[in-house]
Amino acid sequence: AGKITKIFITHLHGDHFFGLPGLLCTISLQSSADTSPRPPVEIYGPLGLGNFIRRSLELSHSQLLFPYVVHELVPTSDQCPAEEFKDFSSLAQPEAAPPGAQGRRIHLDPEEDSYLLLEDEQLVVKGFRLFHRIPSFGFVVEEKARTGRLNVQKLQELGIPAGPLYGKLKTGSTITLENGLRVSPSDVLHHPIPGRKICILGDCSGIVGNAAVSLCFGADILIHEATLDDSQEEKAREHGHSTPKTAAGFAELCRVKRLVLNHFSQRYKPVALRASQGDATVATLLKAQAQEVFRGGDVTLAEDFLTIVIPMKK
Amino acid sequence: AGKITKIFITHLHGDHFFGLPGLLCTISLQSSADTSPRPPVEIYGPLGLGNFIRRSLELSHSQLLFPYVVHELVPTSDQCPAEEFKDFSSLAQPEAAPPGAQGRRIHLDPEEDSYLLLEDEQLVVKGFRLFHRIPSFGFVVEEKARTGRLNVQKLQELGIPAGPLYGKLKTGSTITLENGLRVSPSDVLHHPIPGRKICILGDCSGIVGNAAVSLCFGADILIHEATLDDSQEEKAREHGHSTPKTAAGFAELCRVKRLVLNHFSQRYKPVALRASQGDATVATLLKAQAQEVFRGGDVTLAEDFLTIVIPMKK
Repeated sequence: AGKITKIFITHLHGDHFFGLPGLLCTISLQSSADTSPRPPVEIYGPLGLGNFIRRSLELSHSQLLFPYVVHELVPTSDQCPAEEFKDFSSLAQPEAAPPGAQGRRIHLDPEEDSYLLLEDEQLVVKGFRLFHRIPSFGFVVEEKARTGRLNVQKLQELGIPAGPLYGKLKTGSTITLENGLRVSPSDVLHHPIPGRKICILGDCSGIVGNAAVSLCFGADILIHEATLDDSQEEKAREHGHSTPKTAAGFAELCRVKRLVLNHFSQRYKPVALRASQGDATVATLLKAQAQEVFRGGDVTLAEDFLTIVIPMKK
Repeated sequence: AGKITKIFITHLHGDHFFGLPGLLCTISLQSSADTSPRPPVEIYGPLGLGNFIRRSLELSHSQLLFPYVVHELVPTSDQCPAEEFKDFSSLAQPEAAPPGAQGRRIHLDPEEDSYLLLEDEQLVVKGFRLFHRIPSFGFVVEEKARTGRLNVQKLQELGIPAGPLYGKLKTGSTITLENGLRVSPSDVLHHPIPGRKICILGDCSGIVGNAAVSLCFGADILIHEATLDDSQEEKAREHGHSTPKTAAGFAELCRVKRLVLNHFSQRYKPVALRASQGDATVATLLKAQAQEVFRGGDVTLAEDFLTIVIPMKK
């Protein structure tokens, strides 16, 4: 836990965020030996989260040994049934935020139809809107594309000598040769190497707006809930949840490579999800229902502590 | 969880109450099939707890399928170092408490030096003050004594005929025989049968006030923390915690029958606490340190899911 630097909360149902103050205390315990100053842990989640965290830590006299900051996504009222929408915008943000740790309120970018959570040299993380009993969000974590490899054959054809000029082209500069020829990076670089893309959706019975599909398009992994099986579709929808068909339909639409289903109702016992034979009828059912719609890709049923490795592209 | 009717929180450190909103949701899930009206779940804990629960449930849109009520113990400022004392008395109690579920604020009874939490025909539960980093409480759950058995020999000697008069005497009424003799229950009943007494202390480095010893005196079980072993006594005290010696000293003073130590620092691995050989050196150490002081009684090191049966007295 001591290595966590960013935390993302999809929505404010108890089973998705009540554990957060405790997790922060655990991070604090595990980092107590480390006295070097560290950047704040950044927490992203729906409006109201900051107040909850601050109040919980205040009430429990918890003095975290690291700074943290809460950035709050402001939902729109079409993310849940009208009667369930609560406006937490008047909830005070932490009145005693540590210096430099004042969280932002992140509003929907109306042009992009998404929330820009963070961007650095390597990564972009964006949020998009889901429909649930209360406002819920999906997150896309995307690595930026890396510069393509140098096309050595082309470099040689153009008579460019190996050395510093290669470096300039590789880092994006156009160069001019002694013979007056101008060479731009795109002339001598292979295609950029795409980064990996991971999409994680909170509880939902569907998406809101048009951006989700383009944001998730071609993702290496899409993590989508499937609380109930397809025979319970009406009940699932009524509670703001999905079935394998819903999840797989979205995966198919986005042409993702791999679909991971999670958040199964307790009626589907973990052992049944894991078993490969015998008890596996229910698991087989959930998987089969997803596979029937998501013909192109791989379906995995999540279980606790599941680890999936996504290799870097070359 | 669906059978829980009362919950007691010793103090407001995160590892002792952050799980409460989640527990309430679990109780709600497990009672969802049961539509019969039920009395509210009663929650007892330090001042500030009600506000936290209400806010957590409100933020998470949790609609519990049962009523609950929070009774708050008002601590005194000598229960922790002066600089740590926070006054939560201005925190609003639940503004939207369900009808009939308005919690009480329970103040220290200055004569008894204790807090009366609940009393019914069978049980009395009282709280008393502990010293910790923040105000902490101990609880005593005591069964009321049952009326002693009838002394049939005496009844016969007095010439009282078997029948309704036995019942009157047993339920506490004085009777007058035809010959004018007045017989009171104490004349013909054996001694009352004492109830069982269980004492559970929150985190503490010691007690505050004079009532704790008399409240815990002769308890069947005393559950007391021992965060660190005796060689770390100074450090334990500094953090408001106890060692086996502290715990055993209190157990000895109260002449309890059995001492259960809990809340061990992570440095004492659970496996070491459980192992009967080999790895058991640390466990042996903690137990031996307690046993050295608490010579008269039994010492148990608690572990998760430990169950202890206390038979009714006869």
